[in-house]
Amino acid sequence: MPSGTMAMLETYPKAINLDRAELAAAIDALNDCAQACTACADACLSEDMVADLTTCVRTNLDCADICATTARVLSRHTGYDANISRTLLEACATACRSCGDECAGHADTHEHCRVCAEACRACEQACRDLLARIS
Amino acid sequence: MPSGTMAMLETYPKAINLDRAELAAAIDALNDCAQACTACADACLSEDMVADLTTCVRTNLDCADICATTARVLSRHTGYDANISRTLLEACATACRSCGDECAGHADTHEHCRVCAEACRACEQACRDLLARIS
Amino acid sequence: MPSGTMAMLETYPKAINLDRAELAAAIDALNDCAQACTACADACLSEDMVADLTTCVRTNLDCADICATTARVLSRHTGYDANISRTLLEACATACRSCGDECAGHADTHEHCRVCAEACRACEQACRDLLARIS
Amino acid sequence: MPSGTMAMLETYPKAINLDRAELAAAIDALNDCAQACTACADACLSEDMVADLTTCVRTNLDCADICATTARVLSRHTGYDANISRTLLEACATACRSCGDECAGHADTHEHCRVCAEACRACEQACRDLLARIS
Repeated sequence: MPSGTMAMLETYPKAINLDRAELAAAIDALNDCAQACTACADACLSEDMVADLTTCVRTNLDCADICATTARVLSRHTGYDANISRTLLEACATACRSCGDECAGHADTHEHCRVCAEACRACEQACRDLLARIS
Repeated sequence: MPSGTMAMLETYPKAINLDRAELAAAIDALNDCAQACTACADACLSEDMVADLTTCVRTNLDCADICATTARVLSRHTGYDANISRTLLEACATACRSCGDECAGHADTHEHCRVCAEACRACEQACRDLLARIS
Repeated sequence: MPSGTMAMLETYPKAINLDRAELAAAIDALNDCAQACTACADACLSEDMVADLTTCVRTNLDCADICATTARVLSRHTGYDANISRTLLEACATACRSCGDECAGHADTHEHCRVCAEACRACEQACRDLLARIS
Repeated sequence: MPSGTMAMLETYPKAINLDRAELAAAIDALNDCAQACTACADACLSEDMVADLTTCVRTNLDCADICATTARVLSRHTGYDANISRTLLEACATACRSCGDECAGHADTHEHCRVCAEACRACEQACRDLLARIS
């Protein structure tokens, strides 16, 4: 089933520099990761051992903000600027790597960190796949 | 298939004041609408008749920002404050109504406005359904 | 000294429905509050007693997101829609009230909460002043 | 007069890896640029010649989102991760360069583009100054 992201991409009236299905997959991975990180930050705040999870909360907040912004930039095609997309994807892959590592370290103890780490890994890969197409 | 949103909600370690499946559906509708509005704003910018679509671009940008923020607020359960959720959902339903009306007015001419109007209608309904549970 | 916000408002090429100086003051209060709440959430995470501050972190995050979105909406004048501005300002004043109350409760113990509470109070007042002009 | 940003930074209860005054200056430049770009995008939409300004609108939207996210990341010190700050500052400097160039090209015709270009130049410099301290 095509996501709403793909349905909108198919309606864009001009040319797009990237394959639309690959682009839609990357945007969906970014939005999924942003959502997972926002939820994981809040779930960490509700754990009794929150004092052991403050780095996780912080990295989740960074990763959520960066993924959300990257999804927006990739959703714009008018006046495309490859330099912005490339450097932002590199920052986003970096944030997903850090957040995935941090959450993976708590995955045995906290199910929300386990699920969030998976979303971060998938998003990091989607960013790197797209980077390979742009550069 | 449960969305990633629902998978994360199921891991939240404390009580949530709302039904988790209904909440996940609302968050998904909000994120879908934010994505559609961001894409529709950009598609409008690429239309030759952009001068006739400036109100549509503006309303899309507002709706995207408000939906994204509402999705984040609804994704946090620690220290829940019904007053914030209720007033924000009312603002979000208002923005979705305005954006849905504006896009519907261009739906015959622009496919992106037609798809975006559907996302706005679905999101407005999801906001109103959730409001009925909160108040 | 006029802020950068006022300098930009003075260059808007069409009519604006509100007094530009009052509008600039509200936007500046919103951006200041968003910044204070983002910083206060992080300062709370660094306190040894973070377990007592989780509601404060959560309310800070909500207030930061809502203030930032409200500042953006108020910065757009093309295709102005009073219903969106009004309902969003009401949600924003509600969030600033909640966050100001929460931070005020920690103001004697944490200087960041004292400074943040002041920013929330000022922002709530700016939202209510603007609401009085719109409705 | 110290900005609200500096007032909050002074209350952070642990060590910060960067000079607080330099960091506050960078955060203020980022927030000013985000505000200018949001306003410039909307002012462009209100120009009769909006069809000539669609690349400017798009670049303004990207720059606003990236500057706002970078200001948030730099406002968090708990669990500091230099790799995220560095790559994001590089993306932000790139976006400010692109947006500053685009706006400068319209500065003789549109006062909002002239003012916005100045904000982009100042923000790009602030990002590069901070990068020199981090790497």
